[in-house]
Amino acid sequence: MAAPNSAFEKLAELGRKLEAIEHAQSMLSVDEAVMMPTGGGEKRAEAMSVLAGMYHEMATAPEIADWLQAASEEPLDDMQQAAIREQQRVYTNMTCLSADFVRKQVIARMRSEQLWRELRSKDDWAGFLPAFEGVVAIAREEAELRAKALGLAPYDAMMEQFDPGNRAADVTPVFDRLKTFLKDFIPQALEHQESKRAARGGLKPLNAPFPIDKQKALGLVVMEALGFDFEHGRLDVSHHPFCGGVPTDVRMTTRYTTAEFLSSLMGIIHETGHGLYEQNLPKEWSHFAVGKARGMAIHESQSLFVEKQIGRSAEFWEWAMPLVREHLGPQSIAGWDIDDLLLHVHEVKTGLIRVDADEATYPLHVILRYEIEKGLIEGTIKPKDVPDEWHARMTDYLGLSTRDNYKDGPMQDVHWPSGAFGYFPSYTLGAMIAAQLWASLEKDHPGARDDMRNGRFVEINDWRRTKIWSQSSRYSTPELLVKATGEKLNGKYFEDHLKRRYLA
Amino acid sequence: MAAPNSAFEKLAELGRKLEAIEHAQSMLSVDEAVMMPTGGGEKRAEAMSVLAGMYHEMATAPEIADWLQAASEEPLDDMQQAAIREQQRVYTNMTCLSADFVRKQVIARMRSEQLWRELRSKDDWAGFLPAFEGVVAIAREEAELRAKALGLAPYDAMMEQFDPGNRAADVTPVFDRLKTFLKDFIPQALEHQESKRAARGGLKPLNAPFPIDKQKALGLVVMEALGFDFEHGRLDVSHHPFCGGVPTDVRMTTRYTTAEFLSSLMGIIHETGHGLYEQNLPKEWSHFAVGKARGMAIHESQSLFVEKQIGRSAEFWEWAMPLVREHLGPQSIAGWDIDDLLLHVHEVKTGLIRVDADEATYPLHVILRYEIEKGLIEGTIKPKDVPDEWHARMTDYLGLSTRDNYKDGPMQDVHWPSGAFGYFPSYTLGAMIAAQLWASLEKDHPGARDDMRNGRFVEINDWRRTKIWSQSSRYSTPELLVKATGEKLNGKYFEDHLKRRYLA
Repeated sequence: MAAPNSAFEKLAELGRKLEAIEHAQSMLSVDEAVMMPTGGGEKRAEAMSVLAGMYHEMATAPEIADWLQAASEEPLDDMQQAAIREQQRVYTNMTCLSADFVRKQVIARMRSEQLWRELRSKDDWAGFLPAFEGVVAIAREEAELRAKALGLAPYDAMMEQFDPGNRAADVTPVFDRLKTFLKDFIPQALEHQESKRAARGGLKPLNAPFPIDKQKALGLVVMEALGFDFEHGRLDVSHHPFCGGVPTDVRMTTRYTTAEFLSSLMGIIHETGHGLYEQNLPKEWSHFAVGKARGMAIHESQSLFVEKQIGRSAEFWEWAMPLVREHLGPQSIAGWDIDDLLLHVHEVKTGLIRVDADEATYPLHVILRYEIEKGLIEGTIKPKDVPDEWHARMTDYLGLSTRDNYKDGPMQDVHWPSGAFGYFPSYTLGAMIAAQLWASLEKDHPGARDDMRNGRFVEINDWRRTKIWSQSSRYSTPELLVKATGEKLNGKYFEDHLKRRYLA
Repeated sequence: MAAPNSAFEKLAELGRKLEAIEHAQSMLSVDEAVMMPTGGGEKRAEAMSVLAGMYHEMATAPEIADWLQAASEEPLDDMQQAAIREQQRVYTNMTCLSADFVRKQVIARMRSEQLWRELRSKDDWAGFLPAFEGVVAIAREEAELRAKALGLAPYDAMMEQFDPGNRAADVTPVFDRLKTFLKDFIPQALEHQESKRAARGGLKPLNAPFPIDKQKALGLVVMEALGFDFEHGRLDVSHHPFCGGVPTDVRMTTRYTTAEFLSSLMGIIHETGHGLYEQNLPKEWSHFAVGKARGMAIHESQSLFVEKQIGRSAEFWEWAMPLVREHLGPQSIAGWDIDDLLLHVHEVKTGLIRVDADEATYPLHVILRYEIEKGLIEGTIKPKDVPDEWHARMTDYLGLSTRDNYKDGPMQDVHWPSGAFGYFPSYTLGAMIAAQLWASLEKDHPGARDDMRNGRFVEINDWRRTKIWSQSSRYSTPELLVKATGEKLNGKYFEDHLKRRYLA
């Protein structure tokens, strides 16, 4: 227990105020996506901007530096020390850019993102290039400033914002190995899929329509079984599904179409993974950075654990298929056996668009972006050369051309136009971490697959709570993985997962 | 246009920040009532408390006094001057209680309200009395402090918080006249109702059930016709219906029962009146107190205008009855003509409970409370004597006893236990103002009743926009009424309204 007037307590008190503002920001964002009529947007944007300004002012106040210094010399227990370390890291990351620089950055990002929204559908790369060059120049300047403050290489300093501790020196070899593996694996998986489908006379069609209220009831039953706590969260509808809110009140969304039910259900399962992480963070630390989720890669590992490791496994569907028949009616998947269903949820298909990719092809989309954005930040790739770099890699990795096709090439994502560099690797690192966690869980709990067959997730969740959720931001991303699984990121587990699922 | 560095501009900038916090507070309250799962309550309360603290600190900062003083000497146009006057009024009302006093007040109010919640159902007046005495003592102290700061009599200073400009010297004679009128009128109305019902063979029953989705569709059609703007608002469900949100995004709620449809529909119509007021406030002044709704009595006059003057009129139902048949099916009110419907929406019934009262009996519930709370604040009535005072008045005004019945007597409302004194008169003043506004509207626009027959509310709303909505808080409550109708509050209009509706 820290003394009442200690620097630690001052930081705790500030943390409670910041938590309240974050609470308001999160809930207003959820409301905006789920409830707000369009005419409410202008004033909402004003309110969000004022709250963000107040937050930034409070979170970057100069006296915090003194409190952090003083607190680091106070008698604190291990977790309190971790709290101060993490708070210092966040403070440094927030204060290393000057107000003048941030203003300049906001303008460049806004200009580039607005232009991107306008020119993407027109496939107008030449028109977009000057703004893109501007946003890359600003990102390189940002990377330099961050690098200097953190004592890291520029691209590492950018990744540090999203996954503390991730370094290109560790990520690059892991991605290189995965790239080599996948270039070989994907053709095999496609061939295997072809012969499986042929043996069953093709993909069996879904028997639409699927009424939305019945899809919703099915989704709620699956969420509850997976461990989602409806006393502290709910499921709504929004145009883009997300998991938001606060740990004590997690707001998940999905969207429905009556034409089919699998995409919405798999989306719910994915977001439930995010939701479980949030709901199981240590409540007593919610007002400190150390009490928050670790970062993007770990968060994605938690959603992909539930979606890919659990929700697309054969064992899960042994339990879930009867639920589909119960809620959507036996006609919904009439004449299907489990292999018909698995052919749907295990579909592998090469394509140009990242967000449409499956778990086997998705990593190549990410690795392509990782290589290019690292080159952009380091200056070895020029913005004007991005379409050629993209086309060359797309051809090499997936056998597809993006020659003279910008909107399905480097203009497809909002990330770079909005100035987010260093974020993309998190997606695939998350998928790999999820596979490694599952392998580790199965070693500790050999009955995990039988549990899924019975719709039982208590022990699986207990393991995850101990290893990941309760650890919040106590350790860096790589440290957390080592503590949870006994080894650092090892591509073997994700490869084994893919081989088991797509070549067996 | 005020100069960029003027005191006026400083107040405007502060106003924008305060508006953002109010926005967050309003929307979080709506979310709490409409969406929030129970487990989210604790952290929500923390967030609301921090936001309230930040708001109070910003809104009562000492430098505001200097800015107000300086602004009053700057060259400003009429509306800007009104803005400074109103801001000064709000600032004085917010700063006239010391932080120490407010802390003491919060404790007394919480203790009394908590005890009230526990003891009301047990009908335990004796157990509640000490806490009630405490909260009355604090309210008297508050009234003294407010009186001193505002140069008003103590009870006037309490009313001033809710309806600026309302004074007991004006309200008392108006209430006395209304009381005399109603004591006579109610027996006549009851007799008239009896004979009307007898002539039609009694009240015709509603043909339940009424599916909720159909009731909702009917409610939306009526809201839209009344002028509610769904680009800037929506209708949801909550346990206690309310109208919340912000002027650009008005969140109304209702609740449904399948057993009948009239209470929900009339509730929607009432809240639509509040919503129209909010949606039509002058947007360019939303960050100043002068841009907000005038106060409780005027707000209630706007909801009661729509509910009582419009929504319970025969002309309205000429238009609305076919809509009921269209949405709820012809069987819903099979065999009814308009008089059958009016017998339902014009029911007069004496009873002990204020919130269950109709428009004829409701004012007597309010006048009773006005007289007693005024006595409590002025010290002419002691808290321990409230049950006797209540019983004596209830017997005199409505012919009903509350002897040894506290839960249906002075323990029925949350207002006093929570420390709200001076609020009750607003309800009845609102009803009277609504009647006076209707009479004035009809003088200016003789076709108003024909408009209602055709479900046309454009001209009616234009008149209200000009006279009330666009005026926001530019004038005091009594001034606003004089500007809108040419005379001060005159009980004749409400009496005429009641006679027309209940004795014709």
